[in-house]
Order: sequence, then structure tokens, then C-alpha cells
Amino acid sequence: MKQGIGRAGRAYAGEVSVRTSRRSELVEITAEVEKAVAASSITEGVCYLFVPHTTAGVIVNENDDPAVARDIEKTLDRLVPCGAGYEHLEGNADAHVKSSLVGVSAMVFVERGRLALGRWQGVFFCEFDGPRDRRVRVKILADPSE
Amino acid sequence: MKQGIGRAGRAYAGEVSVRTSRRSELVEITAEVEKAVAASSITEGVCYLFVPHTTAGVIVNENDDPAVARDIEKTLDRLVPCGAGYEHLEGNADAHVKSSLVGVSAMVFVERGRLALGRWQGVFFCEFDGPRDRRVRVKILADPSE
Amino acid sequence: MKQGIGRAGRAYAGEVSVRTSRRSELVEITAEVEKAVAASSITEGVCYLFVPHTTAGVIVNENDDPAVARDIEKTLDRLVPCGAGYEHLEGNADAHVKSSLVGVSAMVFVERGRLALGRWQGVFFCEFDGPRDRRVRVKILADPSE
Repeated sequence: MKQGIGRAGRAYAGEVSVRTSRRSELVEITAEVEKAVAASSITEGVCYLFVPHTTAGVIVNENDDPAVARDIEKTLDRLVPCGAGYEHLEGNADAHVKSSLVGVSAMVFVERGRLALGRWQGVFFCEFDGPRDRRVRVKILADPSE
Repeated sequence: MKQGIGRAGRAYAGEVSVRTSRRSELVEITAEVEKAVAASSITEGVCYLFVPHTTAGVIVNENDDPAVARDIEKTLDRLVPCGAGYEHLEGNADAHVKSSLVGVSAMVFVERGRLALGRWQGVFFCEFDGPRDRRVRVKILADPSE
Repeated sequence: MKQGIGRAGRAYAGEVSVRTSRRSELVEITAEVEKAVAASSITEGVCYLFVPHTTAGVIVNENDDPAVARDIEKTLDRLVPCGAGYEHLEGNADAHVKSSLVGVSAMVFVERGRLALGRWQGVFFCEFDGPRDRRVRVKILADPSE
């Protein structure tokens, strides 16, 4: 994973690259997003994440026990199985549905120059049609009163 | 579909109207949202979408093969079937659940005066209790550094 | 439920406390969020909500018939049952999955000093591993043109 270069000041735009290795895979990107926050020099604001792909997503969930991420992957695979009689003929209709369920954007507050995540929270890129090279767009905006 | 009239400058508020024709139906509204972005005269910012209904939602997903939207509709209908022993007596409890799963808001970055969507992405209004006349609220805010 | 104290002006940060009483429980917090909006003195802007927990979430859905909230709780319990062979050993893997499906953040426009919710909409904290004491972080930002 590497991080794009943006503008520092009151608005910052960057990018996190993710290389996935399995078809369904949650990859933690908290450290990469924190690097973007640091690069932005913004201390109080909002960090927006946007996944420009249609068979992937982004969530905020537990990063302490890696089993949680695997349970999320497996439960989504059970609810929306691959190849279960879909109309879309590319073999990844399930991945589009999973992307719609978890969503392609996320938002985390920035406080004192860091992501204001809860004690057990991390940011995860959600791959549903890997392995692939993926990107997460990052925008960090300073609060108007700063 | 028609588009509401808002304020141009650093903040823009508008509206997209959608007429749906089936009970579960994803309707692409990318072109209408792009019109709001153009009307806003904002070149770098964030476009927020909010659905003021409780049996509908909004997602960003593939707009190339229309089969993808139909697979999303059908999978949600399979996971949360209509009329499957709900407490809510209006016959649309499933639609409220589907709305909670996909969400009633979305966010897309604005760059160079356009929605910064991925190659295959479009914005879709999600009808779960149609046919009805629906609205999507649009707010576009310029980045603070612009 | 009580509300945190923030800064009034063009950006406001506060908090809503929620005490839940059941394992899966949607608790309406619209009135508490409206209090934060009033305390912010912001008339046109965006209200962001963020849940710093990994077994909870936040949604916007119907607040007129309480049966809707119960149908959402029960349908999520049916789709993602508690204790159904998960890897995570704390007994709440289902709660992490449900949190990922509904999401830990929400966004509502602020207009004329109030949440711009639809006729039947309310904001709900979603407990999936209660009963517990929980928090919802609130940030309200004035539109740049205000």
C-alpha cells in the first residue's frame, strides 16, 4: 500500500492504494489513512473516504481480533453467494450486491490531527472481487471554525 | 425526473425528482446529480445526497450493465422478502429494512466541476415500495481552500 | 440520554449518550440530535453522526410506528443470527457484521436551524450487543456560504 500526495492546508486530497490477495478480503488501511491526515496538517476536521470501484467497499469496524474481519467476509459470502443465478454475466454480481450493502464511502472525524476512531475501531477496505489492485480516495477538510 | 433550483457559489442546495414504476427498482440519477453540480458552479468540493423517505435509499454502483441493478433488486427481495411475517401492518416492512441496509445518504467528491466517480460507477435511487413520486435532496459544498 | 457540550459558531462538536436495554435494540435519538443542532446555533449546514463502537450503528428510518424498528431488529437477527458458528470467540460476531451492514455514520442536512428530515424520518442508534452504555459523536458544520 502507498499513499497519494495531496495539498496541505484546509483541504487535502490523497489516495491509498491497496493490493488484495483473495476474492473476499477485508484489508485494514487505518495506518495509511492516518498518514494522509498527518500529511494534510489539518487538526480539526472530517476525513472522507471514497472507493471508486463497484465490487468493493469501505467500513469502520473492529481491528483487534482479525477473526472479526473474517466473520464479516464469510457472513457476506453466505448471505450473497457467488454464482447463485444472477443475471449479470461477469461472475461477480454478488460482489456488486455486497458493495451496495456495506457502501463505497465512509466518514471519520479528525481531532487533534488524528482520526477520532473508537477504542477498537479501524478502517477496512472491503474487497469482494479480488485479487486486484485497488484505490481509496481520501479527502480531508478542516472545520470552518479552525 | 427534474432538478430543483438552488444557490450557486460556495454552497448549493437542490433536489432531484424521481418517478418510479415498480415496487423494487434502482433508477440511475447520475445525469441529474451532474446537472446540480454544474448549476452549483463549484469545481472542487463534496456532493451530498439525502433521501427524505423511509422506504427508499441511494447507492453508488455499476451503471454499465443494467443487469447489475436488477441483481441488486432481486437479491434484496430474496434476503428481505415482502410480507414475511412482519409486525408493521402497512405491508412495506421489508422496504424499511432494505432502506436501512443500503442507507438514505451518499457522498461523492466533486473535482474539476464534475462528480469524481469511478470508471463504472453511477448514482442510483433505490425504490423499495414503489411505484411512487420520490425526491433526492442534493447539497454541494465547495472545499474550504477553494 | 444526555448531550455533550460543544462549541457554538460555525463548527460544533457534541455527543449523545444512549443507555440500551436489550441485545438488539433501535433507540430513537432524534430529539437529542436536534438539541445539539440548537446548541450549535448553526442554521444552514450538515450534521454528521459517528458511532465509536464496533457492535452498534446509526440509521435514519421511520419513527412513526415503533413496529418498524422492531422489524429491522428482528430481520437483522434472522439474517445474521447470534452464535451461528463464527470464528470470533466473544459471542458477538453477529453484532460486528450487523454494524458493518447498517454503518457507523450518518449525515443529515441542517436547514433553518433544524434537522432536514423527511416527514416520517427519525435518527436511530442501533444496538447489536446490549444492554450497554453507548455514545454517538455529533459534529455540525455551517455551510461555507452562510
